[in-house]
Amino acid sequence: MIVNGKSYRSIWSDLEGSESFFTFDQQKLPFQAEIINLKSWEETERAIRSMKVRGAPLIGVTAAFGIWLACCEAEKEEKNSEWILKVAGILKKTRPTAVNLIWAIDRMLLKIFSGNSQGHSLKSAALQEARKIADEDVVTSVAIGKSGLELIREIYMRKKSPVNILTHCNAGWLATVDWGTATAPIYFAHNEGIPVHVWVDETRPRNQGLITSWELTQNHIPNTLIADNTGGLLMMQGKVDMIITGADRVTANGDVANKIGTYLKALAAKDNNIPFYVAFPSSTFDFTLKNGLTEIEIEERSTEELSIVHGLKDQELMDIRIVPEGTKIHNPAFDITPSRLITGLITERGICRANEREISKLYPEFYPISKNK
Amino acid sequence: MIVNGKSYRSIWSDLEGSESFFTFDQQKLPFQAEIINLKSWEETERAIRSMKVRGAPLIGVTAAFGIWLACCEAEKEEKNSEWILKVAGILKKTRPTAVNLIWAIDRMLLKIFSGNSQGHSLKSAALQEARKIADEDVVTSVAIGKSGLELIREIYMRKKSPVNILTHCNAGWLATVDWGTATAPIYFAHNEGIPVHVWVDETRPRNQGLITSWELTQNHIPNTLIADNTGGLLMMQGKVDMIITGADRVTANGDVANKIGTYLKALAAKDNNIPFYVAFPSSTFDFTLKNGLTEIEIEERSTEELSIVHGLKDQELMDIRIVPEGTKIHNPAFDITPSRLITGLITERGICRANEREISKLYPEFYPISKNK
Repeated sequence: MIVNGKSYRSIWSDLEGSESFFTFDQQKLPFQAEIINLKSWEETERAIRSMKVRGAPLIGVTAAFGIWLACCEAEKEEKNSEWILKVAGILKKTRPTAVNLIWAIDRMLLKIFSGNSQGHSLKSAALQEARKIADEDVVTSVAIGKSGLELIREIYMRKKSPVNILTHCNAGWLATVDWGTATAPIYFAHNEGIPVHVWVDETRPRNQGLITSWELTQNHIPNTLIADNTGGLLMMQGKVDMIITGADRVTANGDVANKIGTYLKALAAKDNNIPFYVAFPSSTFDFTLKNGLTEIEIEERSTEELSIVHGLKDQELMDIRIVPEGTKIHNPAFDITPSRLITGLITERGICRANEREISKLYPEFYPISKNK
Repeated sequence: MIVNGKSYRSIWSDLEGSESFFTFDQQKLPFQAEIINLKSWEETERAIRSMKVRGAPLIGVTAAFGIWLACCEAEKEEKNSEWILKVAGILKKTRPTAVNLIWAIDRMLLKIFSGNSQGHSLKSAALQEARKIADEDVVTSVAIGKSGLELIREIYMRKKSPVNILTHCNAGWLATVDWGTATAPIYFAHNEGIPVHVWVDETRPRNQGLITSWELTQNHIPNTLIADNTGGLLMMQGKVDMIITGADRVTANGDVANKIGTYLKALAAKDNNIPFYVAFPSSTFDFTLKNGLTEIEIEERSTEELSIVHGLKDQELMDIRIVPEGTKIHNPAFDITPSRLITGLITERGICRANEREISKLYPEFYPISKNK
């Protein structure tokens, strides 16, 4: 996607052969688009842990590149495979909930230890696999974009005026490798000439909406930032045509765990008869779970996410305390949107309703019992 | 109520006879409890407009004291009643949504121009009336507190463990003269020995939840600050027993205009079968309106409320920019909660369901047609 007029992915390896890769420091966004060059698995680990890099798919790809850098170090310093496994274990623990992280690292390990690297060196096989994971993520986002585009097109054909889409948090291209999940349909619609306008939830406490707004603006998509409290009124006033959010985990029956606050927007959508869609790659499904509320553990995050705010004062980035010390704070990071509130799920395989019967038609291999019916 | 161990009202006139009154600068809360001394109607106007003074009932009382100061100036500088009416017009326009403002100013005008000031000077009649409005507001809050207390007691008798109450924005004592509206039942319950715990919505963009949390903590009520996104999850998890909010305007059929985001909490309450109450003085009713959504003007406030945040850095209060300049922002201050989502209305006359039939039983004088039925 576009940053300051130039096209980027959110992560890329050095084409001139140096053993390092590049990504954006998301802690400095939306104020500064600073590219950082990560040169070791330790730097990679710190970047994920400190949330310079964030977004479940991007975290996975970043960790894959981290494993590649570990392989480079292993070859140079004659470290054994046991050492690489130790590094993999450390990288897996950088974030507790991102399932893509574990998935990507395991896939890297499988590749480099399978003896199936066709004469390539360990590090060359690792680089190839990390790049493949990144490329596949782009293909997934493109497929999500094309599916979702049709939903936006339908509304536009009926309405003949700009389509107003509300989104929560950042399921944009910086959370993936390119295009994003929730934002991919928006970019595809825009590129087809369909006028769109996005209402961007600020998304307290971490304000990821600011990244979404920045991404959209850089890519010439009209957008307006709103407080998380505002979407309900806008829906009631007829100013929202559809909602698209991302997801952190989706159960076999279509319950969605996503950024805290998603459930409230889904309720307002239902109350105002506005379609509510959730866009995510198939890897976000957890087919072992049947009930989002009782089975998905909700991560409790630091109270400082609420009490400390990051911003600019006299052109300088700084943190200030907006909640007095000693104030008791509760900060769960996700909530559960029950499938009954969701109009449809958008994945790279297409769109389906959020219920077991419809999901199983798109993913029959995960529903052996219903196949036997 | 208590501030740093000392008992205060939120507004009081100088007992030593100077032509000025005192209130807290709510912009500096919760970091500093600074008392300001307002000495003219212009200072009063600026204090309301800049939200140093806020909360529908307190705005009304403050405007009443502002009219008194205008009367003082009129007597001193020999200005006529037309000039006072002009000042009243300016004060009425400081905030558009809260109906108490207009109500209090009209009541002041009626008093000072009725020729019924029993030999007192204009300014002395005005001061007497402003103080009366303030005193009556306290009586009103006490009556609201006593009514709401019974609802909390019922839950406690059933549950036999601390009653968890969620509130949005600040309908606390600093929004009134004493006790608050939404918080009055909580203080009364606490004073009766009923254990209560309050979930306090941060209430972006102006973070009035911080004032609520500060008030509650100063008065020894256990409370926890949460992001506005969080209440839905808590309700789903069974961690909320009831919701009490304030109101800025209530229509004859029970629709409620209150701080933006109230509607989302009402939806979640309904979805989880949790009682949702709205507490307010009778003066918040606008019996001329029948439909909140189409008839109540929603105040659009400055985009800086979202983009600039106020807090502490190295013990110094400062503002920082958290949204890049040029970002488009939409900032409506209120939303409408339809009466169908409201379990009950708590006023100084008692509790009633949020529909015309029930409201008209408590307020028969405003429903002449139903009286004739």
